[in-house]
This record gives sequence, structure tokens and C-alpha cells, in this order.
Amino acid sequence: MADPIKALDLPARTKTIYPPPYDAALVGRAKRALGEVFNLTQFGVNLTVLAPGSASAHRHWHESEDEFVYVLEGEVILVDDQGEHVLTPGMCVGFKAAVPNGHQLINKSSAPAMYLEVGTRSEGDRAHYPEADMLAVKEGGKYRLTHKDGTPY
Amino acid sequence: MADPIKALDLPARTKTIYPPPYDAALVGRAKRALGEVFNLTQFGVNLTVLAPGSASAHRHWHESEDEFVYVLEGEVILVDDQGEHVLTPGMCVGFKAAVPNGHQLINKSSAPAMYLEVGTRSEGDRAHYPEADMLAVKEGGKYRLTHKDGTPY
Repeated sequence: MADPIKALDLPARTKTIYPPPYDAALVGRAKRALGEVFNLTQFGVNLTVLAPGSASAHRHWHESEDEFVYVLEGEVILVDDQGEHVLTPGMCVGFKAAVPNGHQLINKSSAPAMYLEVGTRSEGDRAHYPEADMLAVKEGGKYRLTHKDGTPY
Repeated sequence: MADPIKALDLPARTKTIYPPPYDAALVGRAKRALGEVFNLTQFGVNLTVLAPGSASAHRHWHESEDEFVYVLEGEVILVDDQGEHVLTPGMCVGFKAAVPNGHQLINKSSAPAMYLEVGTRSEGDRAHYPEADMLAVKEGGKYRLTHKDGTPY
């Protein structure tokens, strides 16, 4: 069993699988995959930092994966079908699988924001993007991203 | 979809399914079930506060549920087969399902400690307690606790 770690000591991943022009909104997003350090496979936990102006994702929802977010530092705006919701440290929100309400977090403040995000790992999951010509399908544990009609980028 | 919440606004659960004398160690533990607010079913997320002297659980491990802990405030001691590990805010640890290394968190400090804990929800999971005459089996989404040999308390 791996010993406890300081989460921010892990290297961060800043790249995205989104193709242009959809990748631009995610510049300034840094994710640290915490669960993998401990060989967890049933769910993933990311420590995510959003620089001012950066987004977590394009609005999306998952067919078969529950998601959960807990804000640690700074302020993020949740955008969903109901509009905008401000999240500050100690606030949380969950997104039940198969609920077709596309959601994203955006840092509209002038300071970095940091949150934990948890998501089930469900082989075959599909993520839908109501506002972008993208479809993500999980195969072999990784998302493959295509146009909405399934044609490759 | 439920709106975001302030996690500490939720009512806390302080009771345990442990019978005497095992319940005594958990006095001072308060859990808030965050994922349930959003109808999440694939994993649970608790915001847990341990008063000084309180423990998260007796040392245990799960047959089929990954677990993850992220410390938010204060200091807790992780006790496992390797001994004691100090966890402070920003530190995390994971426990992979089926690894038979019993673990617990204890607040040995003089201030409250607070952490997030995530666990898969796996029907039929069994939790083993190497140092206590207990066995927990999940049935219908809830743990039923017996002696190690399966006889009821």
C-alpha cells in the first residue's frame, strides 16, 4: 500500500484530448490524478487547478459515470441548464450519471481556483457535449473523442 | 439536478453500527453524506470531522470497495500494518479494494480534524476487522454487522 502523499507534490497534467478550437478554453487547467497513485481503479480523483479564465471542460454530461466536485480554494462558476452558480471553498455539487444537463466549471475570478473532482470509472461511458461538436467514448480506460456523428477528428 | 451546497450546512450523522465495546472509539466522529444530496449511487462522499481522541473506524479493509481520503483541516494519524503516518491538510491516501491491510484514522491532536472520504458503493462488499470481532456485509446498500463467525450481535 502506498504511503500518504502531499497532493500538490504530484506532477500536473495540462493537456486535453479536445481538438481545436475546443482546446482553447482549457488552457490554464492543471490536473493531478490522486487515485492512481494508490492504484485505485473504481473511481478517479483529480486535484484540479483552474487559472483565471480557464474552464474545467466544455459543458458535458456522462451516460454512466457519477461525478462530484468539492471546492478547496478560490471561486468557480458552475454553468448548467439552470444558469450560473457560484461555488466557494467548502461548497460541493454532484452530477448523477445519465442526467442530460451539460455542466462545466469556469474560473471567472482573478485568482486561481482549486477543487477535487471524483468520477466513477465506467468502461464504455459516453460523454455528450450539447454545445460542441464532440462525443467522447471510453475504451480501454481512455476517452476517444470524435465528432458528434462518430467521425474522427 | 440539485444546486450546489455548503457541505457543512448538512446535518451530521454521529451514530455507528459498531456494538459495544467497539462503538466507544468513534465517539466524536461526525459524518455528512455529500454524494447522497445529489442522488449519486456509484460512490459515496463523506465530509467527516473527528474530534480530538476520536477514530474514523476500527482498523478494517474492504473486499470490493476502493477508498480515498483527502485531509482538509487539522491532523489525523493513519494506522495500518506499516505503523503510523501523519496526514495534514492537502495530504491524501487511497486504499485499494481487497488489499488486506487494515487501516483507520485517529485524531491524536488537540484540535478537530476534517477530511473528505470517498468509497465505491459495491453491493455484497465485506469489511474485515483484523483487530475486532466484527464482520460487516453490505446488503441492500447498508452494512450489517456480525461477529467474525457470522453470528449476530
